Amino acid sequence: MNFLEERIVKDGIVKEGNVLKVDSFLNHQMDIDLLDQMGAEFKRRFADKPINKILTIEASGIGIACVAAQHFHVPVVFAKKSQSINLDGEMYVAEVESFTHKCINHVIVSQKFLSPEDHVLIIDDFLANGCALQGLIQIVQSAGATVEGIGIAVEKGFQSGGRMIRNLGFQLESLAIVDGMDAETGEVQFRDQSKMGSSGSVVTEEGEICRSATLD
Amino acid sequence: MNFLEERIVKDGIVKEGNVLKVDSFLNHQMDIDLLDQMGAEFKRRFADKPINKILTIEASGIGIACVAAQHFHVPVVFAKKSQSINLDGEMYVAEVESFTHKCINHVIVSQKFLSPEDHVLIIDDFLANGCALQGLIQIVQSAGATVEGIGIAVEKGFQSGGRMIRNLGFQLESLAIVDGMDAETGEVQFRDQSKMGSSGSVVTEEGEICRSATLD
Repeated sequence: MNFLEERIVKDGIVKEGNVLKVDSFLNHQMDIDLLDQMGAEFKRRFADKPINKILTIEASGIGIACVAAQHFHVPVVFAKKSQSINLDGEMYVAEVESFTHKCINHVIVSQKFLSPEDHVLIIDDFLANGCALQGLIQIVQSAGATVEGIGIAVEKGFQSGGRMIRNLGFQLESLAIVDGMDAETGEVQFRDQSKMGSSGSVVTEEGEICRSATLD
Repeated sequence: MNFLEERIVKDGIVKEGNVLKVDSFLNHQMDIDLLDQMGAEFKRRFADKPINKILTIEASGIGIACVAAQHFHVPVVFAKKSQSINLDGEMYVAEVESFTHKCINHVIVSQKFLSPEDHVLIIDDFLANGCALQGLIQIVQSAGATVEGIGIAVEKGFQSGGRMIRNLGFQLESLAIVDGMDAETGEVQFRDQSKMGSSGSVVTEEGEICRSATLD
């Protein structure tokens, strides 16, 4: 197990319905030393990429992205959910579904902050069905910029997002891939990432294919 | 002028209606080196305080708080706006008005992450009427914890929040206090913080006193 998997085993809480709570160290209270370790690991995994910007999405991706950015020495842009009246000018907008909140969100980035010269690392805390992530990828592509990679803290390997995004050819690096969990025993089963590449063993939940579109 | 005031003069944009846009370096795209300088300055200003936790509020406070936390070596907790279904257990909730978005928000922190042993530095990007900040103070006090100080990036000195909070006896440190701005010339007028203590010269806009309450 790597440092993040060890921390999930120690402090993560498994709830009914395949819910993994990591709010004591990752997405409500944040352990800054852990975030720094994660940033160093992202830097190691994307060392050969010419990344000049990190893109994340509010809210819980921001802390991870900002601490990681110190390892890359690049600025962070965070996408906003739903239109804010303080955002003016031209914007890239993607429409994405949230299964957690049962609604459609707009994911928004000002056109000022993404251009064809940008080589972008996308960072987020969780990947499950991948709807938000697809919105971010669409936005980068709308700007004519390049997605150099995607760094995720915790991927739910039994949902379809990771597989779809790897199938599209993106370098997706998840520091922990949870392939199963048991709310009764509290046990979490991680994918052995040294064996990645054969995708046949990943069971995918149906009915969570994102409808998403870029709005111009 | 200090480093943040210089950056505001260089890259901030003044809009009609006393709007100061700092979205190219502070609250949409974030300059991580600038955030690091801000973190070091907060550490200098609160060096004598026994801070063991930083509290901020989503979304744009999170990046500043996480980078600052590396100077304090403490965890960050971010308050959430409005109820999320992933937050279970007992929560501290404050009801605050948002003048920007013309609505009432709930500001929420899990009771797990604030206790009477906590000595809290509150960090946020902007202070204007201070409604969100009052909600955060209420939450810290509900937990029986201690507010050791408040660190703000940009304070609108012509609005009432800063004066009210200083009058309540809190150590409020704003790295830049904007006392006026002119959308025609783009000029920004900063308060000379070496002369702080005499509050007579601060003009306050009326009609923005927060109604806020802690909900149990």
